[in-house]
Amino acid sequence: MGQTTLTGKKRNSKTVAEELATKQQTISISEFFTKNRHLLGFDNPRKALLTTVKEAVDNSLDACEEMKVLPEVKVFIEQTSESRFKVTVEDNGPGIVKKQIPRIFGKLLYGSKFFGKRQQRGQQGIGISASAMYGQLTTGKPIRIISKTGKGKVAHYYELHLNTKTNEPEIVKDEEREWEGKEHGTKLQLELEGKYHKGKLSVDEFLQMTAIANPHATIVYKSPKEDVVEFPRATKQLPKESKEIKPHPYGIELGILIKMLKDTDAKTLQAFLHSEFSRVSMAKAKEICGKAGLYEKARPTRIARQEADNLYKSIQETKIMAPPTDCISPITEEQMMKGVKKEIDAEFYTAVTRPPAVYRGNPFQIEVCIAYGGSISGDQLAKVIRFANRVPLQHQAGACAITKSVLQTAWKNYGVSQSRGALPSGPLIVMVHMASVWVPFTSESKEAVASYPEIIKEVKLALQEAGRKLASYVRKKKKAAEEHKKKSYIEKYLPHIGIGLREILDLDEGEEKATLSMLKEILEKSRK
Amino acid sequence: MGQTTLTGKKRNSKTVAEELATKQQTISISEFFTKNRHLLGFDNPRKALLTTVKEAVDNSLDACEEMKVLPEVKVFIEQTSESRFKVTVEDNGPGIVKKQIPRIFGKLLYGSKFFGKRQQRGQQGIGISASAMYGQLTTGKPIRIISKTGKGKVAHYYELHLNTKTNEPEIVKDEEREWEGKEHGTKLQLELEGKYHKGKLSVDEFLQMTAIANPHATIVYKSPKEDVVEFPRATKQLPKESKEIKPHPYGIELGILIKMLKDTDAKTLQAFLHSEFSRVSMAKAKEICGKAGLYEKARPTRIARQEADNLYKSIQETKIMAPPTDCISPITEEQMMKGVKKEIDAEFYTAVTRPPAVYRGNPFQIEVCIAYGGSISGDQLAKVIRFANRVPLQHQAGACAITKSVLQTAWKNYGVSQSRGALPSGPLIVMVHMASVWVPFTSESKEAVASYPEIIKEVKLALQEAGRKLASYVRKKKKAAEEHKKKSYIEKYLPHIGIGLREILDLDEGEEKATLSMLKEILEKSRK
Repeated sequence: MGQTTLTGKKRNSKTVAEELATKQQTISISEFFTKNRHLLGFDNPRKALLTTVKEAVDNSLDACEEMKVLPEVKVFIEQTSESRFKVTVEDNGPGIVKKQIPRIFGKLLYGSKFFGKRQQRGQQGIGISASAMYGQLTTGKPIRIISKTGKGKVAHYYELHLNTKTNEPEIVKDEEREWEGKEHGTKLQLELEGKYHKGKLSVDEFLQMTAIANPHATIVYKSPKEDVVEFPRATKQLPKESKEIKPHPYGIELGILIKMLKDTDAKTLQAFLHSEFSRVSMAKAKEICGKAGLYEKARPTRIARQEADNLYKSIQETKIMAPPTDCISPITEEQMMKGVKKEIDAEFYTAVTRPPAVYRGNPFQIEVCIAYGGSISGDQLAKVIRFANRVPLQHQAGACAITKSVLQTAWKNYGVSQSRGALPSGPLIVMVHMASVWVPFTSESKEAVASYPEIIKEVKLALQEAGRKLASYVRKKKKAAEEHKKKSYIEKYLPHIGIGLREILDLDEGEEKATLSMLKEILEKSRK
Repeated sequence: MGQTTLTGKKRNSKTVAEELATKQQTISISEFFTKNRHLLGFDNPRKALLTTVKEAVDNSLDACEEMKVLPEVKVFIEQTSESRFKVTVEDNGPGIVKKQIPRIFGKLLYGSKFFGKRQQRGQQGIGISASAMYGQLTTGKPIRIISKTGKGKVAHYYELHLNTKTNEPEIVKDEEREWEGKEHGTKLQLELEGKYHKGKLSVDEFLQMTAIANPHATIVYKSPKEDVVEFPRATKQLPKESKEIKPHPYGIELGILIKMLKDTDAKTLQAFLHSEFSRVSMAKAKEICGKAGLYEKARPTRIARQEADNLYKSIQETKIMAPPTDCISPITEEQMMKGVKKEIDAEFYTAVTRPPAVYRGNPFQIEVCIAYGGSISGDQLAKVIRFANRVPLQHQAGACAITKSVLQTAWKNYGVSQSRGALPSGPLIVMVHMASVWVPFTSESKEAVASYPEIIKEVKLALQEAGRKLASYVRKKKKAAEEHKKKSYIEKYLPHIGIGLREILDLDEGEEKATLSMLKEILEKSRK
């Protein structure tokens, strides 16, 4: 290279580097997401309304389950002007302690769920504060929150802005309030630019699907069109509590391992491996150290980069039990059927819950429920309903591992027609649920599951299992339909045969009747 | 609601709220992206290698153009172990002043491009530091940078880690160094877990496509397979410099307007509107104030929320000229043709640069180049090459507005076959470039353009224009082929006719020849 080819207008290099330096600055995460807010699900007014309701309801359900109380969630949407809506969401969860309220609702990337390895709806600490930010951006109005943490306690009321420069909450109002008749819970209200519609990708659809995947929750919904809908719970049984787990050694990367070695309180390498990871016994820890050529009593904080690298490789080469799976809480076959039957009127239902599996060290579990026939429209492509940790996924179906798995399943084997590269068609609804300590979404707006091969494999296995059950029903139904068709043919043509026979053989009415009745019997038998 | 339905196991609400409070904490942006690194394009080892090269090359090209120097970029990839690669990228840009180096390479969301309204490859200040973070995460090794800002200056060498807890750089090494034979530029080196492959979605493909869209750049590439490829520049003409513009009033949201009113130095509302926005004359500013019922001499900082709301509405209702478009720098038809001809051997080329258009207040411009026939394989679907601000987009084609526009174009009108819902098929390469001050990507990894209707419309118009040019070529070619076929038939059968005539009419050899020659002439004429 050496000599640089220059144009006539080349600028002095010092000036350029220094000029650039004056422009370089830190971008706050809220400035970043303000400019890129489609990443958070605020692409357009319709989606903004949906995303806001979704984030608030997800939080409410998580909070109620945290407290082991059956969720009662109220969602009110009110139109305040042509393009503005006021959204109110109230729950009966544990409430939020006063000093946490501002940051939970007025700061992006703040929350309790990001660091825990446990199945929850929320993951990132962005959702609801992003809604507050969007409301503020489009209407200039603050988010309002009232929260009460128990009987006899005073409720706290806040009005908050989010300072997008600093990503910190600004308190507009902070008051103690009476909350009559409320024992505990949280209610939030915000105004935003939005657009209300019904049908596909709507708030209405979201809440109906949420009711299906959460049959233990009661949801009351008042839409801007003034009609109140109630989705009553179908069961009083709360979902199995999901336990927090330690990371599995196979899912850890070298950089994280180095950081953990630096931060640990453990005195020896062996104790470190045993106490900071799941499924590593003291014996297993010693085995790992041995393979890495490291002394098991070495101080973790003194492990050099190259030694950590050896440790990392040794972990990969050691056989370690799969992670425990009590960190996941599937809906279960029984509860899925309850949820689906409550909302969808079909002839046939079946559900499958697969055993837990693991991707990149993260346990997950796939469930499928199929509804067929009845009031489901038969002349369209099957409807695929996707859920992740009990939350319906509505947008970005094409980018989702679940949709891909449905497409890649050979539905013809199960008596359902399907064109090449298309979804199956017929009176079919396919519901798929992925439960995991960490759902790998393709964007912050959590609309599609990333296509890890392990996930696609599990979804396909679940679909196949449910498909086989469907197949035997569809076959029986087809056979019955054919029977009925044949029977109706016999009944239709027999009288004509009768007339013919009477004329040919010169029978009287009685003989004709007897002959036809015998003929019918013989034909019916031959049909079987 | 009032009374809450409780299960037997209900936990004390105070405890739950307080327990949750202890878990709530701030998530640093680097922790967020470590866990969600597929959002940045580090889904798997293959893509990680590509993303790293891409981010480094994008920065190098931006830097060279900033200085108005013809880019010479060297990319070296070396395999250091089965799954690890060392990537080195060197440019002849202006270099970086010493004190900025650590934050540019060791901190996410830091840079010079996010706040400017101007066409550049980089937008967010995430890319290269994310690569450094990924390298550190997978190999534990720091990123190394050497940079020199001019002749006679000393070069600065750094080794950096990124502290994911604080999102701040940690300086491992900081030295002054000689950089022999180098006038100015930057070289970076990092080691990461990766996987090298050739063909689709590879680094090789990325660099070839970059060469097409940047015919003014020379790129030297040494792959892990040891072969050195040079993509020499096809022109010495630098792209037109893109000017920085002020935001257009139509693209501003209420929240942003309120913030600008608070932050402005302008003394009056009228001056504020005139000086902070593009296309607002003093007269226009007065008109906007009038419509909003606001005094044009009012102090911007004293405007209340409701007044700002009126101002916002008044802006929407006022006719304002479209934004200036010198902030965008298209490749131009001529340069596109040069780039494509250099890399693709076809029979026919055509290019179209549309006039600039606007989406959500952001100016953008669409360009299309089509190559047809020659060495392009004809028995496959057309290849669609997508670019945004001269950067090739390789992944997520299905989610991209550009792909959608190609699918929605009726290629049969242009003599190219196309099945329903599919890409056209035949010996066809379609290249589309979107240039904009802000490309709306569907994720941080910048792989697909979001589907704004204005963008899809412009792409389709450009495709149609190029399609019409293609059509006339394809038709001519088809006609020529048919001519040739007819001609060869005549030549094939004429001798047989001759033999027949000689026998029937008893001609001698001379007569036969003369007759045939006349016959041929007549037939040739009738053919036309």
